Amino acid sequence: MSEKWFVGVDIGGTTIKMAFVNSYGEIVTKWEIPTNTSDAGKHITTDIARAIDEKCEELGQGKSKLAAIGMGAPGFIEMKTGFIYHAVNIGWRDFPLKDRLEMESGLPVTVDNDANIAALGEMWRGAGDGAKNLLCVTLGTGVGGGIVANGQILHGVNGMAGEIGHITSIAEGGAPCNCGKTGCLETIASATGIARIATEGLEKTPTSKLQAIFDEAGAITSKDVFDAAATGDSLANEVLDEVCFHLGLALANLANALNPEKIVIGGGVSKAGDALLNKLEKQFKRFALERVAEGADFRIATLGNDAGVIGGAWLAKQG
Amino acid sequence: MSEKWFVGVDIGGTTIKMAFVNSYGEIVTKWEIPTNTSDAGKHITTDIARAIDEKCEELGQGKSKLAAIGMGAPGFIEMKTGFIYHAVNIGWRDFPLKDRLEMESGLPVTVDNDANIAALGEMWRGAGDGAKNLLCVTLGTGVGGGIVANGQILHGVNGMAGEIGHITSIAEGGAPCNCGKTGCLETIASATGIARIATEGLEKTPTSKLQAIFDEAGAITSKDVFDAAATGDSLANEVLDEVCFHLGLALANLANALNPEKIVIGGGVSKAGDALLNKLEKQFKRFALERVAEGADFRIATLGNDAGVIGGAWLAKQG
Repeated sequence: MSEKWFVGVDIGGTTIKMAFVNSYGEIVTKWEIPTNTSDAGKHITTDIARAIDEKCEELGQGKSKLAAIGMGAPGFIEMKTGFIYHAVNIGWRDFPLKDRLEMESGLPVTVDNDANIAALGEMWRGAGDGAKNLLCVTLGTGVGGGIVANGQILHGVNGMAGEIGHITSIAEGGAPCNCGKTGCLETIASATGIARIATEGLEKTPTSKLQAIFDEAGAITSKDVFDAAATGDSLANEVLDEVCFHLGLALANLANALNPEKIVIGGGVSKAGDALLNKLEKQFKRFALERVAEGADFRIATLGNDAGVIGGAWLAKQG
Repeated sequence: MSEKWFVGVDIGGTTIKMAFVNSYGEIVTKWEIPTNTSDAGKHITTDIARAIDEKCEELGQGKSKLAAIGMGAPGFIEMKTGFIYHAVNIGWRDFPLKDRLEMESGLPVTVDNDANIAALGEMWRGAGDGAKNLLCVTLGTGVGGGIVANGQILHGVNGMAGEIGHITSIAEGGAPCNCGKTGCLETIASATGIARIATEGLEKTPTSKLQAIFDEAGAITSKDVFDAAATGDSLANEVLDEVCFHLGLALANLANALNPEKIVIGGGVSKAGDALLNKLEKQFKRFALERVAEGADFRIATLGNDAGVIGGAWLAKQG
């Protein structure tokens, strides 16, 4: 019998990323379909099942070529049952995602949250390089996380494990966070946080290059801050020092507890590459135990948007 | 064939705790032998093997009643091979603990560090109550930790996982820690840390009841601080507020990443019971995500000195 493929599915608020992945984690083919959020998201599982059938036909493959589906979705998920309590961006509420998609696709389905499947993808085929103890941090609009320990993704008792973005960095007087608390790491080390801190800094340092950008565009982005820092702008560098201090401290504290082999930084902010990693590692080493720092290797995520579908396929492969 | 027993061994700097434990985690018999640290600890494995044989004889049981040995030891341990790189209190350096004891006892041996087997013991038969996601913190002379996730103890890439005591609580200007860093949680939430903070507080608040104790005994203990706090002493209460702030923050940050079902507090300081837990939980709830706080149940460790031998037996049972 020829090798089976696994279906990786990464559901976002606007598009659903899909791929057929072989048992070595190589993408055979990948594509996207729009996320149909009408009628509280009830058409999504049909859309996915149909897209799989159409792709099989297009490739001249029978459905029997596919072994299973692994998918990531946003929101609060009951992992064992694949039941979604609430996914704001999609419209699902008390939605039996696994059961529905199994019925419509005829394939076994495993569900996890989107940050976790991205971490599994990076572990399998990306910057994680097969490391069985892995910390994945996604610095995007928010700060997400996925923790792999002993080769397994951690879920915790009610699916909340990996919420690295809500580690408290500033115990008192920090900026308000979407979660209802204040001073969360997400308010500092996300793209939004970096832009906020830089904008606030303009009051004290109006001579910064960032002022002209702010005046012209009406706002500063985290990319503007990295660009300005690269040209020696002092405000931009102070902002990055502050961001890396808090991120390095939070990751060192986690690493003292988890002793990871790889710390993988992904998301839009990670595009800054070494400009981010160099400052970050310096702070990390201040606060991590020496042997913990020796064991931990910082990497920028390498799979980009493919991390989710590859991690989904990993999930499917594990069953 | 009748039920087998497991041998739990907990090696400390002055005594070795030993027990025969049945497959339900019940102690059949327990005893102690002195730790013979002469000749760089080379007699210890013989002492343990002999103590096991003698106890079998005393109980009228053949050696075949015993299935395996699980032991905890201090120091840096390579878990898979049971090799001890360095154990300061014992004198071992590059000592093949597992191999030696297997040869001398004729039984399979599993080795882990002492904080981890205590956590496993509390998971199996103590305050952990079988919870598969468990954070164990030992507040003694230092601050130790053991993390159980998905029912497994976490070791990390080089055996350092669980070093909760070296989470940095005060990033700048903290007290020096034995690990070489400053401001570690251990400098604050250990018995030593509590005594230090209270002693330093006397300068500003010499009217505290603790002053009289200090004058008479030449030192304050953490128990003195809890006793004085119970009678309303304001310095003592301020010290405990500070300790619980830092401990609550560190545990909430860990819990946001690990989402544990139980947080078990052990060690000498935990004898303060509710006086500690009430303040601690209040701080924890300030900094943990709501759903994380809902999932986490604080408990005082219940097994005391037996945690290690029971956890050792658990290890032995898992093989």
